[in-house]
Amino acid sequence: MREKRDLLTIGHTALDYIIQVNEFPLPNSSTAIKKMRTFHGGAAANVAVVSSSLGLKSSLVSAVGGDFHGSDYQKHLINNNIDIQDMIIVKEDKTPTAFVLTDNNHDQIFYFYWGAASRFKESEVPYDAIKNIRAVHLATGDPSFNWKCGKFAREEDKIISFDPGQDLHMYSSQDLREVLKVSDILFGNHHEIDRILKNLKMNVEELREFGPSIVVETRGRDGSVIYADETINVDALERDPVDPTGAGDSYRAGFLKSYLEGESLQYCGELASAVSSFVVEAEGCQTNVPNLKMVHERMDG
Amino acid sequence: MREKRDLLTIGHTALDYIIQVNEFPLPNSSTAIKKMRTFHGGAAANVAVVSSSLGLKSSLVSAVGGDFHGSDYQKHLINNNIDIQDMIIVKEDKTPTAFVLTDNNHDQIFYFYWGAASRFKESEVPYDAIKNIRAVHLATGDPSFNWKCGKFAREEDKIISFDPGQDLHMYSSQDLREVLKVSDILFGNHHEIDRILKNLKMNVEELREFGPSIVVETRGRDGSVIYADETINVDALERDPVDPTGAGDSYRAGFLKSYLEGESLQYCGELASAVSSFVVEAEGCQTNVPNLKMVHERMDG
Repeated sequence: MREKRDLLTIGHTALDYIIQVNEFPLPNSSTAIKKMRTFHGGAAANVAVVSSSLGLKSSLVSAVGGDFHGSDYQKHLINNNIDIQDMIIVKEDKTPTAFVLTDNNHDQIFYFYWGAASRFKESEVPYDAIKNIRAVHLATGDPSFNWKCGKFAREEDKIISFDPGQDLHMYSSQDLREVLKVSDILFGNHHEIDRILKNLKMNVEELREFGPSIVVETRGRDGSVIYADETINVDALERDPVDPTGAGDSYRAGFLKSYLEGESLQYCGELASAVSSFVVEAEGCQTNVPNLKMVHERMDG
Repeated sequence: MREKRDLLTIGHTALDYIIQVNEFPLPNSSTAIKKMRTFHGGAAANVAVVSSSLGLKSSLVSAVGGDFHGSDYQKHLINNNIDIQDMIIVKEDKTPTAFVLTDNNHDQIFYFYWGAASRFKESEVPYDAIKNIRAVHLATGDPSFNWKCGKFAREEDKIISFDPGQDLHMYSSQDLREVLKVSDILFGNHHEIDRILKNLKMNVEELREFGPSIVVETRGRDGSVIYADETINVDALERDPVDPTGAGDSYRAGFLKSYLEGESLQYCGELASAVSSFVVEAEGCQTNVPNLKMVHERMDG
């Protein structure tokens, strides 16, 4: 008999390489890396780690490589009380890896290696994990796997949130419709929500009729907008952002934590903003992660 | 009391990421990595691993990061009977890492992260390791550290070989003169030997008078030339090269193995060619490494 848990996040666990160079080399030349740091990343793992720190019983299903077993990342997830018993281990491949290169002009080049994640497609839905959870969050990852999981979660009457993020371009119109149809909450940034509406030829109200009754649009420094029976604007909690990556995922974790506690949508957005205001104060998506007490103190302060 | 050993290699231990993309992304865009493999690399480690497989008691001094302890790479070196007790561990930094990206046109971009290796400069010469060794091989790595080690090895009357490789550009004329002055053998490819001679304004005979009495020039498929009291041409042992990286380092390992056994220079070159003919048959610099029996069989065949 499985333990009942709160939030199952499905999608990428990835390694992030943050690399600084003076300039990007031309083909057939070389350049020295000035600074290189590695971080734990992947949108699904980010949401799992932050939500766990806020007090949810979080579970994570990602496709990772043979390098995962015994890795620092595995230890980190276990130390953060995340249930990883349903992770998909692809022994002969590597854990997904992102390389973000920045030059002296602040221009960026982004490489992403799917690796083990290309095996999501043929993987089995984590039925037991879904049965024993209150909510499922579908993050960046394979559209067809996300949909299969969402469909089963709907049959089991779970709360379902969806955030295609940077993998949005992988969804066909049909994919998008299928996943949105079973979702309760859609998260996206300004550009992503726009693209989804254009793709579906709907406005927000039509989208809310069709699928997710709550649409949350995050706008960086400009805060967030929650489209529900009323439209709620939430300010960003202005701090000194050191690194904006991870802001969105930590917002989602904060929102879902409050939502599962039955808080008002206004409060969900405010707590979410406060959570992400911590994460942007340090490089990396799973660094400077607050607990609930720290978040409350900042909201009250 | 330390065990007496054969060959101490000083220089880089590195991780090699071999990455394939369709095309190199422009600034502010992203691309998916089609294939990514990681290999154990770094010229010093390559020479240590291959020479150990050939039967030498090999030791290795490299500057590596906090990630080295407990890593696959550490286990690999230990499993290959390499003495790594004098490795320089820089806890707060990473093991040097090379990223080699290749696109569909076979154009390449090369990124190198020195990481822990930037601390060679301030590191202490491994006096005990040098005292108890027969020969020291100075590979790619920090010029000043290489020179300090070479100087002490000369005082201790050790055999010294030198291969600045792709770090040649880091050596000033003065650096080059100092290291070459104490060296018995210089290894380099065609371009590197040319550049060294131009830099010093010498011809090969003048260089041999000045420093290393043996100069070994490797020429890929065109074999190698050994400049000594006579000039010896050695053919490459033609096989199907899958990946030419590691050819040079394995040649050096083979050459030094034979040289320390007192073989003729002709034989040293022939055995060296046979060794590298194995290593180019597989991707990576420390893969498909033969033992001595396999090398002899190929030489006889």
